[in-house]
Amino acid sequence: MAETLRGNALVGQSGGPTVVINQSLVGLVQAAAGIDAITGFYGARHGVKGILEEDLIDLRRESAATLEEVALTPAAGLGSVRMKPKEEECARILEVLEAHDVRYFFYLGGNDSAETAHIIERLAADRSYDVRLFHVPKTIDNDLRVTDHCPGFGSAARFVASAFMGDDLDNRSIPGVKIDVVMGRHAGFLTAASALARRREDDGPHLVYLPEVAFEMERFLDDVEATVSRIGRCVVAVSEGIHDAAGELIVQSAEKDSHGNVQLSGSGALGDLLASAVKGRLGSVGRVRADTFGYLQRSFPGFASTVDMAEARAVGVSAIEAATGGEFETGSLAIRRLVGPDGGYASENFVTPLDTVARVTKEMDPSYINEAGNDVTDAWLDYVRPLAGELPIIGRFEGHPIAKRLS
Amino acid sequence: MAETLRGNALVGQSGGPTVVINQSLVGLVQAAAGIDAITGFYGARHGVKGILEEDLIDLRRESAATLEEVALTPAAGLGSVRMKPKEEECARILEVLEAHDVRYFFYLGGNDSAETAHIIERLAADRSYDVRLFHVPKTIDNDLRVTDHCPGFGSAARFVASAFMGDDLDNRSIPGVKIDVVMGRHAGFLTAASALARRREDDGPHLVYLPEVAFEMERFLDDVEATVSRIGRCVVAVSEGIHDAAGELIVQSAEKDSHGNVQLSGSGALGDLLASAVKGRLGSVGRVRADTFGYLQRSFPGFASTVDMAEARAVGVSAIEAATGGEFETGSLAIRRLVGPDGGYASENFVTPLDTVARVTKEMDPSYINEAGNDVTDAWLDYVRPLAGELPIIGRFEGHPIAKRLS
Repeated sequence: MAETLRGNALVGQSGGPTVVINQSLVGLVQAAAGIDAITGFYGARHGVKGILEEDLIDLRRESAATLEEVALTPAAGLGSVRMKPKEEECARILEVLEAHDVRYFFYLGGNDSAETAHIIERLAADRSYDVRLFHVPKTIDNDLRVTDHCPGFGSAARFVASAFMGDDLDNRSIPGVKIDVVMGRHAGFLTAASALARRREDDGPHLVYLPEVAFEMERFLDDVEATVSRIGRCVVAVSEGIHDAAGELIVQSAEKDSHGNVQLSGSGALGDLLASAVKGRLGSVGRVRADTFGYLQRSFPGFASTVDMAEARAVGVSAIEAATGGEFETGSLAIRRLVGPDGGYASENFVTPLDTVARVTKEMDPSYINEAGNDVTDAWLDYVRPLAGELPIIGRFEGHPIAKRLS
Repeated sequence: MAETLRGNALVGQSGGPTVVINQSLVGLVQAAAGIDAITGFYGARHGVKGILEEDLIDLRRESAATLEEVALTPAAGLGSVRMKPKEEECARILEVLEAHDVRYFFYLGGNDSAETAHIIERLAADRSYDVRLFHVPKTIDNDLRVTDHCPGFGSAARFVASAFMGDDLDNRSIPGVKIDVVMGRHAGFLTAASALARRREDDGPHLVYLPEVAFEMERFLDDVEATVSRIGRCVVAVSEGIHDAAGELIVQSAEKDSHGNVQLSGSGALGDLLASAVKGRLGSVGRVRADTFGYLQRSFPGFASTVDMAEARAVGVSAIEAATGGEFETGSLAIRRLVGPDGGYASENFVTPLDTVARVTKEMDPSYINEAGNDVTDAWLDYVRPLAGELPIIGRFEGHPIAKRLS
């Protein structure tokens, strides 16, 4: 049983934005309000960068209304950072924690952030500085280990699924081939969420390409051609991280003949490359277009998954409970999937050691991918459906034909 | 006073999708339900293509529930087409109308669709085939003449403004330069709607480039550099249709050194070109990324503007009233902006001759663009705000600093 520490709490946010990362932040602040041992609650601007610069704000002076508004706001309300602190910086971080009597430190982020938390935690132990140190998970990629899924993923999945619903209607309205590039460099979870867009037999996406499966251009073109032959159009979901059997990114191999210095996100290069290949194969099929969804997937406001919002808030609350409950001195919050009393979806939180989630990532389970490697399975849809939550209403005419009267 | 015709009604949808084009369709069908003179209501699949092929469905056999679901559904529920019928095709269209006793024809689309309606109307007059023929406006570009604005634009504006709200938060969270390319080849209305994203002094977009203003790469780079110097980051809204003083599209001049065969929409070429230029100028400023919003702007479901949905439904209803009221035999529906009883926004519909909207388009009024040509004016914001309607809640911490304790 760990001693109950008395002192200030500090929270920082790290890594790429999600639309619910502030839910977790607000969950932390609100849950800590009732805890006597937590004497103040500070926020570090731009994660460890703010700690190094002592750029801290007093979160207890924010009104309840502001907290609730920030909770609904995408991206890191405190600012984020992509930074792995070096040895001497970790020492400085500890100095700052000590100077401000910080005894509870929460770091919100993905696997790199968990590693940062882990490094600080070990250094604190080395120096016998007593601090409760917890990683609170967020990522749209859903690639953290141990946890069933990550806060942030459900909302990104809802956005991607809805985007494909709209784009498939667009494509049905004026048929052609449409390729949509989805975020996720190493793991295909978000790209695979596109399949939630299907409600009826011929709904897109008709093909789904994931980084878990080696991409072959000829097979891709065969797949598109077969789909166009069958239904006269084709909507394709492609992960930005698709690579060939040797592990080389498809977009990198195209560097010389399309773009100069490309990066995966914030560039249209992969989509344009695939569209150009389809045009080369199918020629006169009609319109071939590619869109790269880009940052909207992680930042579009006012469209979060209800389940995701609630779970993101709840992991913040659970982190406070874990930090002050006496059982844990450190760890990472994780989510366990349960069957609810009505037989539906439910979940609970638990604590896993930092080193089980730090640095490493996970990919999609093979049971989620079809044998041909160009689609997902029903097991995947069962997994992802409750996380994305309710999707927009899509109607379709029954279409009773009028008999022809002319030859 | 025109004679009251008795016969069937036919509706077709044409051109690029919007998220409210089916509202107008359902407005037509519902308003016609109470009109004895309209004996049946048919829908043509894929616009004039469906008429040419006699591919018609019976819209009176669709349930009220289906109609309301379809009304909420983006893209053309009947399918759309991009096709200007030739002389002999127009003759065939008239044959089909006559064979099915169609006396009310409604064509939903932009200025090209108005032209198609105009051509058919004149041919019907030549042949003394009595038909009431109306164009019902839709376009995300907002480039139709006479009308104050077009159904479809408000929802696209809401999507674009919200996307910029999210992307600006993303950029604030991890600072850098972000360029977002918005649809609109000749008119900047949709790109200009990005400015609705600003709520506070330093909110983006910080720069807005429209096709109404000749684009100069060096001035653009100066603008970006000045913004980064001032606030450490920069979010830019760029129309896909920007061109140089000679009228040449910026992206076309880049064809040889970036992409092969580019088109404006469904390609990331312009964004990638601009991002590359910014990297060249600013070098070590940090992250420079570009996203091209693409088809999501015209098809994203579950996120329409409430005002736009209501107005799109209303122009359908007004078209039935105009067609059966006795005053008009033909025309295009348009919207007049009014001041409501509470001093707020209101509108009413009126009929304008087909030849006032056919073929021609309009651009943004110069009073909507700032003198430097890199932003919009308050007059523009007053114009567009009520059309986009309510935007997502964005909260921000007040940020009371904690006093530093270390050197």
